[in-house]
Formats: sequence, structure tokens, C-alpha cells
Amino acid sequence: MSTDTLLDALHERLGGRGLLRDPADMARYGVDWAGERLGQPLAVARPASTAEVSATVMLCREHGVAMTPQGGHSGLVAGALPAADGGELVISLERMDRVREIDPINFSMVVDAGCILDNVKQAAAEHDCDFPLSLGAQGSCQIGGNIATNAGGLNVLRYGMMRELVLGLEVVLPDGRIWNGLKALHKDNRGYPLQQLLLGSEGTLGIVTAAVLKLSPRQTQSRTALLGLPSVEAVIALYGLARRDCSDLLSAFELIPRRCIELAMEATPTLSDPLDDAYPWYVLMEVAASGPLDLGAMLEHLLEQGMERELVLDGALAASDAQAQQLWQFRESMLEGQRRRGEHLRTDIAMPISAIPAFVERASTAIMAASPACEIIAYGHVGDGNLHFNILPPTTLADADKHAHLHELEALLFEVVDEVDGSISAEHGIGRTKQAAYLARLSPLERELADGIKTLFDPAHAMNPGRILPRP
Amino acid sequence: MSTDTLLDALHERLGGRGLLRDPADMARYGVDWAGERLGQPLAVARPASTAEVSATVMLCREHGVAMTPQGGHSGLVAGALPAADGGELVISLERMDRVREIDPINFSMVVDAGCILDNVKQAAAEHDCDFPLSLGAQGSCQIGGNIATNAGGLNVLRYGMMRELVLGLEVVLPDGRIWNGLKALHKDNRGYPLQQLLLGSEGTLGIVTAAVLKLSPRQTQSRTALLGLPSVEAVIALYGLARRDCSDLLSAFELIPRRCIELAMEATPTLSDPLDDAYPWYVLMEVAASGPLDLGAMLEHLLEQGMERELVLDGALAASDAQAQQLWQFRESMLEGQRRRGEHLRTDIAMPISAIPAFVERASTAIMAASPACEIIAYGHVGDGNLHFNILPPTTLADADKHAHLHELEALLFEVVDEVDGSISAEHGIGRTKQAAYLARLSPLERELADGIKTLFDPAHAMNPGRILPRP
Repeated sequence: MSTDTLLDALHERLGGRGLLRDPADMARYGVDWAGERLGQPLAVARPASTAEVSATVMLCREHGVAMTPQGGHSGLVAGALPAADGGELVISLERMDRVREIDPINFSMVVDAGCILDNVKQAAAEHDCDFPLSLGAQGSCQIGGNIATNAGGLNVLRYGMMRELVLGLEVVLPDGRIWNGLKALHKDNRGYPLQQLLLGSEGTLGIVTAAVLKLSPRQTQSRTALLGLPSVEAVIALYGLARRDCSDLLSAFELIPRRCIELAMEATPTLSDPLDDAYPWYVLMEVAASGPLDLGAMLEHLLEQGMERELVLDGALAASDAQAQQLWQFRESMLEGQRRRGEHLRTDIAMPISAIPAFVERASTAIMAASPACEIIAYGHVGDGNLHFNILPPTTLADADKHAHLHELEALLFEVVDEVDGSISAEHGIGRTKQAAYLARLSPLERELADGIKTLFDPAHAMNPGRILPRP
Repeated sequence: MSTDTLLDALHERLGGRGLLRDPADMARYGVDWAGERLGQPLAVARPASTAEVSATVMLCREHGVAMTPQGGHSGLVAGALPAADGGELVISLERMDRVREIDPINFSMVVDAGCILDNVKQAAAEHDCDFPLSLGAQGSCQIGGNIATNAGGLNVLRYGMMRELVLGLEVVLPDGRIWNGLKALHKDNRGYPLQQLLLGSEGTLGIVTAAVLKLSPRQTQSRTALLGLPSVEAVIALYGLARRDCSDLLSAFELIPRRCIELAMEATPTLSDPLDDAYPWYVLMEVAASGPLDLGAMLEHLLEQGMERELVLDGALAASDAQAQQLWQFRESMLEGQRRRGEHLRTDIAMPISAIPAFVERASTAIMAASPACEIIAYGHVGDGNLHFNILPPTTLADADKHAHLHELEALLFEVVDEVDGSISAEHGIGRTKQAAYLARLSPLERELADGIKTLFDPAHAMNPGRILPRP
């Protein structure tokens, strides 16, 4: 059999640690982060070098076998999960986890794609630098996955998405050739930007094996505040004020509804209500600096302004790192609280910041009209116009009916996204779970160009096929 | 004749103001910024709307006539200049100069591609926002050209290149179809990023007709300093200190050699030596903020640190806006001083910031060995690793011999660029003048993908043909 020949050849090339064929060993490579979806790898290749990735891809190509590049299993759109038919070879980058080089003078570092984000951040910190990408999954997600999905997270408003944090890439193309684009240049206007195409391509155009990352000076101080606000309008007005009043030192500005504070307290009983009263909306914000500025005075000035204008009703300003961590704990525990409620609708939508108040109003009205007993949990990154407008199904609904019900509500929600010229995927990507909604909104011209790009890089449609675009 | 039919059809579609055929009217569309190169338009189309651009492109396509999209004539690589054979229709965007919409809450604005950069900056300022792109040519360059060339300039270290300042695009493709990608979203991970391909494509993949730009809060205060330093090593060390000490409020950090101060004083006799003594290297730096921070104290703290470490030998801190403008006058006058010296070599190279000291040393040695009587003028944007390492030819050299001599020196210089893994085009692009040096450094794989991208968008090779890549 052709696949047996392939697996034998891979075993010979990659060695025993480099190829997993035992179902028990392979199990964890077929499950996504939420544990909701299952895939079935043909086998799992674990190359230890760029040359081994290249050899693996060439062998797959010779044998006509499709490949699923895989990072840290924290994707949310089933983009890096193998198909259920057992026909795809998973190529895991997990053994390529070396920090190759750090150049603090150039504010750059070169890392293998399999490096875990937290390790990259730690290595940068040891050289008095920050790698500012900040995600809930940073303890497990890998740089290659962050690149493939153009990851976002908490600090985008200040530092940009992964696209803006990458200076160069090394990529194994779908035919196995290695593209060395590992340049450590902050400016480079030579021709078409290949690396921009790879960023966010979800493993469909090639396998990122290494990257040059852009660093920032290490922040030496930060201040965190949790504020209670009367309305989404007030949140948006405060954001405009904060961007101006805090110069460019605002690094996070998170919208949190009251329900999320309650979910956080349910999930973590040691948390108590953060402010004396309950407020309909909260903002968790952070300012940070690397130099000797008085951030406390800056933040107090902002809060005075916010209170004077009746945007801020009350607030807690962390007086220590421990207190700041406790405020951030609400953000983490609310996710855990959501998870405990079982199957629910997670979305990741974007819109102009100015559209957020009207969107929340219209979307909430539409959803509650269709499903009066559901619960809406709309939180997100205000500065990016990015909401995770999630829905907990009615507790009375039978488990078997939840999926279809939530799917209907998602369609309703996406219609409101269309009305504000928004995006159905702000930071999670398309993968397989968002594909239908994505394709339905793609113009024929956009589809033609997207197909052309895929075919240019991967004429055999063997590299992560069926993600973003359907198989031809 | 086919071109006559085309021009008649264009005249009918665009009207008298929309098509220039008189050689006197067309003359200025065939000259580049430095006045050094000449092109000969077939005619000049001046469409007044996206629909008219689309109609123009479709007519050209029907008649098999090549097109040169043109902005504000400030390009430096002959990318937007028509060919000398009179076969290309210039499509000037200059009549499309409308600011379509400003949304200060979303920190975005929608503008026609023909808007002059200064007008865009002014319109943003009226809404308490900044559009931070800052170039010497901002009084004449157009947004469409800034996008097509992925423009850089003085504030890249803080705000990024044009690529990072664009949220969405409207583009007329080489077949005349209109792609509406005018989204005002700060995050959008839906599929392959078409707009990234257009950014920096120098008019070879389509004509940008409008853009959504990303704005910042308007800076309400800034501080400028001109410092004297002993060496390039000291400049680089001070840069690292400044990035940290000034948090993220550093908006410009320009390296200037002594010779440029002298050229500036020659060009503008009202300028006097800015510091009591002459120093081999100067840094012109600016910090800016939108909120109530004490920038003066911040900058003084940095200078104390710099002096303590003997990085800074002396400095002038502007006490007023007028004084700050006077310091910036050195930057502008030195360019004028260079220009007055007649033909000279202008380069635009990038390298890792950490490589700058060794590069300046090695490149200077190589150039002076080859041409002992030439003068080197190396200035640039330190935070971007971007040097304009320019060369004035020996004054004794006959005018007729200058071009060939400078071309030889450029080749020598680019070899040193290769040694530090640098780029021969940091911000100016490839166009036609950098094409040979670009192609010589392109791997077969990169060439294949670049050709594939061009062919995908423009199979007839009619849109700005021969720029970036040669005609097939």
C-alpha cells in the first residue's frame, strides 16, 4: 500500500521519535482545544529540523498524501485538526522549539516555529525586551500557529496583530522547497511581500518553520484598573478619552459585561465583587511603560476626567502587581465560567469601534427575540472593534438540540455583523468551522483571487486542504 | 489606428478634462521628481471616479495598451513614469482627491487615492486625530502612491510603514473589475490578505482608487533635540537607551553626519552651527504625546543618562515650536544642499540596527578605497535600520563620467549590504532603477512566486509592465 510505503519512508527519515503511528500516541493530535472536535491522523510526523520538514513534505507529495501542519492545539476553528477520514498526515512542529538567536539592539529574535509563546516571551525578557503578543493560550500555543492564524489577543491595540510582529519567515512550501525569508529588517520594500501571504494562511500555503520576531523594550511598570460604566456608549467614549489621555501607553482595554463578572465569581469562589455596587458594563484596562513616567498620575487623571463626564461610575485601581493580577483574574475566570456551562456559541466578530454600541443593541434584540431564555455574554477588545459575542443556550434546552439552536442564532448574529460592515472572523481565522459563513460573504472576484493564490502555492491542494477554501 | 480609437473612446468616456493629448499638457507627467528621467506618455487619462478608472482600464485592455498609474511624481525609482517609447497610457489619480469620510471614534478615515498626503493629515487634525505618515514629499505625494510604494519616512519607528496604516482598499484590477475592500476594521482574519499584496506592488497588480486609513490620537505636545555624538556606536547605544527611557513615545531618531550639517548651512545661510563645537555624528530626535505627560523631564532624563555614559557630548533641546522647526530645518536643508551638488548617488538601504556601525565602517572603507576623492553622506532612520548612504562624486570628475562612476560605487556598496543580510531597497521600492540589483538577489523560488503573483493579477502584463519584474 502506498501509505505504508510513505510511513516506512518517513520512519526511516525521521526516526522513531519523529513518527508516531500508534493510535494511543496519536490520540492527542486529533483533538482540538475545546475537546469538541475529533480528527483522525494517518500518522503524526514530528520533524526536528527544517530539512526534516522539507523531506516529510516531499515524501507526502510523492505519495499523494495530504498534510495538516499542527502547532499547539489552541486554534478555535478546526484549522489544524486532521480530517476525520484518517487520510491526512499531521506534521507537528513541537520538536522544533529552539530560540535560535536574540538581538536586543535590533529588537529582534529568531525562533523555531514550534516554540511555545510563553517561552519566547521569557527568552525576550531575559534580554530586557518584550515580545508583546498576549493570548489566553500562551502557555501552550506555538509561534508557528500564531503566524499561521495571524494571532491577535489582548495587546493588539498597542502592538498590532502577529502580522505586525514578524520581520521574516522561513517556510517549507507545499512542494517541499525551503523559502528562506529570515530577514531581520524593519523595512524592506523589495517586490511582492511573500511573508504577508503566509501570515494568516492557516497552513494552506506552506509550513512556517522559523520566524524573525519584532521585539519591544521591556515594560518596567504597568497600572491596571477595573471600572464600572453605565452603558456601552460610555465605554466607547472612555476609550477615545483613554487613547488621547494615555498617549500611546494604553496596552489593553477590555469590555466586560456584568454577567461575566458573575460567571467569574461562580468559577473562582475566592473572587469577590470587585466594586461596591454592580454595574452593567466594566472596563479592564492597562497602561504600561518602559521608562520613568508617572503612570499612576496619568491613570488617575483619566479616571477623574471619566468620572466628571459620568462615563465612569466607580473603579478599582490596582495598588500592586498582586492586585493587578487579581483584576486580570476576572478575565480568565469568566472564560472558565463560560466553559463550565457546556456547549455554547463562541463568536469572534469585528466591526468599526464606532458601531459597537448600536451593534450590541441590535444584536441583543435580535437574539433575545429568537431565543428569550438564552444568555448573551458580549465581551471583547474595544480598541480593535473585536467582540466575542457569545451565547449560552437556554438551560432548559435538551443537549441534543443545543447545537442546531446555536447555529441558528449564529446566522442571525452574522446578519447584524453584515449590517455594520463587520467581519465574522476578527482573530480566529476561517479553518473549517467558519468556512460556510466566509464563502457566503466572498465576492466572485475575491473567490477567484483566493483560489488563484492557493493554486499558485499548492497546485496539488495537498497542504491543509479544505481549510479556508473548500477542496476543489 | 488602434490607439486613436482608444484615445477617442477615452475622450468620450472621460471628457475634455479627463484626457490630455497635447504634448505641452502632458509634459509634466513624463518627468520624475529629481528631473533626471523622462518618459513619454501616449496620453494622460485623468479619471474623476472609480467607475471612470475602471472604464479606462477596460478600454486599455480591449485595445491592448499598457498603463502607468501615477500619483504625485515623488517616487525615486522611476516606477510611475511612463516608458520612453510613448506606448503607455498614464492614468493619473490627481482628480480623485476627496476625503470621503472621517470616523474619529474608530480612528479611521476613507480617502480617494489622489488625495495629497498633507491634505489627509490636515483633515485628520481637524477631527483631533493624526495620520502619522511623514515624508519630505508630503506636500505633493498622493495616498495612492504611498500605498503602491508602501511608503516609510520619518515616523516609521513608532507608527510603522504605510502597510500598518491601511485598514482597507478599493482597487481597480488590471482587467477593469473593481475590488471593494474598503473595510474600516482593525482586525479581520478572513482568508488571504489581498490588500497586503497591493501594498507595495508599485502599480503592477492594480490601481488603488481609495483607502481606509488608520488614525492615531492627535499629538498635543512634542520635544525635539539635536545631539552631538562621538561615533556611530554611540548613536546605536543611545537609540537603545531612548527606546527604553522614552517608553513608546519616541517618534523620530535620525542619524546625521557632520557633513550634512555643513551642507545644510551651505544651502541655508541663515542656519548657524547648532552646537558650540562640531561633532562627527548628530542625532535629531523627537518625542511626542497626546496626553498630559512631562515630555521635557523625560527627555532631560534621557540626555543626562546619555551624557553620563559619554554617548552624548552636547545637545540642543528646543524650547519652543519655532526652535524645534529650526532643528528640523537642518534635515530639510541638507537634502537641498545635496541636490545642489548635482548628480550624486542616492541609496536607500536597510540592515539590522545592530549592524549599522560595522556597515558604515566597512562601506566607507570600500568606497573611499575605490574613489578617494568622493564624499560619503550617510544619514538615515536609525530605528528602522534604514540608511540613505549617498555619495557625492569627486568634484574633479567630468560630468559625462559621473554616472558610470557612481554606478560602480553603488555595486560596491550593495556588496557590503549583502554581507550584513540587508536590503537594497528599504522604502523606495524597485520600480525600474533598482530592478537589476533586485533581480540579481532574487532566488529562483522567489522569482517563480513573484512571477506567479503578477500573472495571477495581470495575465496580459499590461499594468505598469516592466516595473519590479521585467516584461516577460
